[in-house]
Amino acid sequence: MALLSDLYQLSMAYGHWRAGRHRLPAAAELFFRRGPFRGAFALGAGLAEGLRCLRAFRFSAADVAYLRSVLPSTTEDAFFDYLATLDASEITVCAAPEGSVVFARVKGPLLVVQLLETALLCLVNYASLVATNAARFRFLAGPEVKLMEIGLRRAQGPDGALSASKYSYIGGFDCTSNVLAGKLYGIPVRGTVAHSFIMAFTALEEVQPRELVPLAGGEPVDLPTLAESWLQRVCELLQTPPEKANRGELAAFVAYAITFPHDFQGLLDTYCVRRSGLPNFCAVALALHQLGYRAIGVRLDSGDLVQQSKETRRVLRACGAHFQVPWFETIPIAVSNDISERSLEEFSREGSEIDVIGVGTNLVTCPLQPSLGCVYKLVEVNGSPCLKLTEDEEKMTIPGSKTIYRLYDAAGHPFMDLMALEEEPSPSAGQELAIRVLGRLAETTKVVPAAVEPLHRTYFRDGQVCEPLPSLPEVRTHAQVSLNRLNPAHRRLHEPQAYPVAVTERLHCLLTELQQASQ
Amino acid sequence: MALLSDLYQLSMAYGHWRAGRHRLPAAAELFFRRGPFRGAFALGAGLAEGLRCLRAFRFSAADVAYLRSVLPSTTEDAFFDYLATLDASEITVCAAPEGSVVFARVKGPLLVVQLLETALLCLVNYASLVATNAARFRFLAGPEVKLMEIGLRRAQGPDGALSASKYSYIGGFDCTSNVLAGKLYGIPVRGTVAHSFIMAFTALEEVQPRELVPLAGGEPVDLPTLAESWLQRVCELLQTPPEKANRGELAAFVAYAITFPHDFQGLLDTYCVRRSGLPNFCAVALALHQLGYRAIGVRLDSGDLVQQSKETRRVLRACGAHFQVPWFETIPIAVSNDISERSLEEFSREGSEIDVIGVGTNLVTCPLQPSLGCVYKLVEVNGSPCLKLTEDEEKMTIPGSKTIYRLYDAAGHPFMDLMALEEEPSPSAGQELAIRVLGRLAETTKVVPAAVEPLHRTYFRDGQVCEPLPSLPEVRTHAQVSLNRLNPAHRRLHEPQAYPVAVTERLHCLLTELQQASQ
Repeated sequence: MALLSDLYQLSMAYGHWRAGRHRLPAAAELFFRRGPFRGAFALGAGLAEGLRCLRAFRFSAADVAYLRSVLPSTTEDAFFDYLATLDASEITVCAAPEGSVVFARVKGPLLVVQLLETALLCLVNYASLVATNAARFRFLAGPEVKLMEIGLRRAQGPDGALSASKYSYIGGFDCTSNVLAGKLYGIPVRGTVAHSFIMAFTALEEVQPRELVPLAGGEPVDLPTLAESWLQRVCELLQTPPEKANRGELAAFVAYAITFPHDFQGLLDTYCVRRSGLPNFCAVALALHQLGYRAIGVRLDSGDLVQQSKETRRVLRACGAHFQVPWFETIPIAVSNDISERSLEEFSREGSEIDVIGVGTNLVTCPLQPSLGCVYKLVEVNGSPCLKLTEDEEKMTIPGSKTIYRLYDAAGHPFMDLMALEEEPSPSAGQELAIRVLGRLAETTKVVPAAVEPLHRTYFRDGQVCEPLPSLPEVRTHAQVSLNRLNPAHRRLHEPQAYPVAVTERLHCLLTELQQASQ
Repeated sequence: MALLSDLYQLSMAYGHWRAGRHRLPAAAELFFRRGPFRGAFALGAGLAEGLRCLRAFRFSAADVAYLRSVLPSTTEDAFFDYLATLDASEITVCAAPEGSVVFARVKGPLLVVQLLETALLCLVNYASLVATNAARFRFLAGPEVKLMEIGLRRAQGPDGALSASKYSYIGGFDCTSNVLAGKLYGIPVRGTVAHSFIMAFTALEEVQPRELVPLAGGEPVDLPTLAESWLQRVCELLQTPPEKANRGELAAFVAYAITFPHDFQGLLDTYCVRRSGLPNFCAVALALHQLGYRAIGVRLDSGDLVQQSKETRRVLRACGAHFQVPWFETIPIAVSNDISERSLEEFSREGSEIDVIGVGTNLVTCPLQPSLGCVYKLVEVNGSPCLKLTEDEEKMTIPGSKTIYRLYDAAGHPFMDLMALEEEPSPSAGQELAIRVLGRLAETTKVVPAAVEPLHRTYFRDGQVCEPLPSLPEVRTHAQVSLNRLNPAHRRLHEPQAYPVAVTERLHCLLTELQQASQ
């Protein structure tokens, strides 16, 4: 795992080692400068994976041999011997709990703090991005709709897909199609049929076996024949010509219903939804009903999903009423097909009848902003604060080893995160604080927090994870609680009010001094 | 690896098994409908990984136990026993060689063909997307500029990053910063220093050790003192105040130069490029020169890169001329900082002096189109062609088991890919062919190819990879050759001419018959 790094981290490590500076105490901060997707918030995720990486941080003999082959030939042997002994036992990590609206701090010997940069960024960046993306989908879908992650085939390979499943779940999704994610992380998995299954049938004669025993027991019934007779009645009710109901589709539905009588879902759009998918589904579901079983849903995967969901609900209601099957009208309608934030906005604007939404590409690839742009910056070496002053003001870092406080207003909403130097006393609830907000450092602002929360806990020390890590469902719940605590002005997805981050007067003085000294 | 799948593949597998259809011969095609990034071409990549996945395709006892827990409780035991025996030994895969401007075909028992869908899509989709993206960067940069992939921290986790490194290399990049990719795939790795290294120094006194032995041997020299004296001379020449050259930066450059005297690269923009980074770099490089060593380059990572590259070249020329160090003016200038296609267009439009370009986020996340949208469709089951006819005409599939031919014009450019039924005779060079182009199937077109190439080879059969797989550099070369063979009208990145895909008259007849039959 230690080789999961950019080469320059290793050349710098040699530089520090050669200069005898490798064991200087150092501190780095991992943070982002702007929330993704033009939103005001981001969920922090990837902490548990980052801690796992720290625990396993070691160069194997093969790693060291490879490094010998790529570092300049003048590199001293003793450096490679030193690398072979390295681990993260002297590193301390403080962070907000995973799933918090979020930063993290890493402290330890300079060389190791430096070497961890790339791996930690790699583990946190995408995790936080996709968790935040998932939270936005959840926000738009509302609490009732089931959200399913189906991005395996569009992610950056198997591991990217597993991350997508895990962190979408943290962000508020309910389940995934990815079986391996289910096995590895315990996330609920769901899935029924694809168009290929429907297309693999052409006629009822292909259905094998044909019989289904009624739920209450008794003689097995020939389901193709029963479904066929229901199809006539359904087509009559819906006034659609029975010959337009595709025979292969009917066969596929019947075969699936015999295989999974308790879990029959109809995929309606392989041929024509209105004239084929819907009548065939209703026929098979009514046949199943006659034997005591309930269909679990339908899925639409192309065309105008809002209109089709309304048409589908109308047909399900009509069949339910006409054939006196009351549960029919509440059969869940699932949709998929390139669902985006915009789709969800359209669903709610046009009053769809959709109950379950599968999101793939636009969830896992985050096309609105495919990278969070987290950074990891040295803020202190050997007790001296570090400052990077560049021509891009936004790329400036805030120097010094800091504590972060979250300030809450009287309504219980966080209204500001405040960075203070570690040696400063903690601010108190009800106390007037003179602070400076990043982005307008020239002026002092006074704020009185109703409550103050230190944001970070120590998660890693002495080579061990020293804080109990919550389960995945617990992280998921914590994320929803954190999000719901946000002021709606910060939580809204479009043109939210920026969430202010501020520094104390003392930290601001330090910043000004360093700026002057370096100019 | 077999669990890397969407759950519906497994419920469908049970459906096929229960119906006794699981061993029917079936064929599927893996293809994309539109080239990514509004371009006309895509490089096919991921074949070798897909073949590895086929070789390893097996459900472990633990996998089967997990599947028992997620499939309905009515699922028969014998199905799980069957899964435990499955492998890909009856699968045949035909494909164009990896790195070709591209499709693939998979044949075998229906159940296995179906189960492979998600994993193959997952392995091919992102691989092809990022290879194509890399090819576009190479096209814009021209053949001389060195392109370096630096996206590890922005990819979808460690594995996504490794894929990015590998497939960017195939697409035409020269090297990567990702050390693990270097070790695993043999891709050249590069990297020197980051801002954090520069910021870790504040004064020349911190440099340790201080001495460097001249290349030709002799007494060690105190490099900080020597660099200091050169700084005075450089500042005089450049007419910049020596006190504006940051001391920490100078110390960091000196420390790095002592550590890597043969590989000194200056990162110029931690403080001010013009007044600090450039004078400090020239001072240290000239000091090194005096001892017989050559600096290998500079890097700019913020601000206006074109202007800074010109300023940097001007200063390097001035120093080279004034101090009579001719190689100074050709010191390679590297840039990074959110480089995109648009940046590369700007570099060439404004005549930059850039020699090396590091691309991270915009290479690995493919923000212009973060997913290729490859699909995998059953085209034949038990000898009968399959057709999916939906309300989105673009989602229609072309039925039947097919051979693909690439047709070349007299200038050697491919001008069309032609799909024919497998049983049709192969078209010949010089023969007039009546074909129908997808997108305007109503009309017949006549073409006369100067040359005809069957696009697919058989890569997997009898559980074995049956075609020798080229090395990564060979794939990279094949990709460049394939791209260079394209007609410039198809290769250009903006508003290219669409590359036509056509069907034979016989295939068109089949399509029409099936459409009529299903309506």
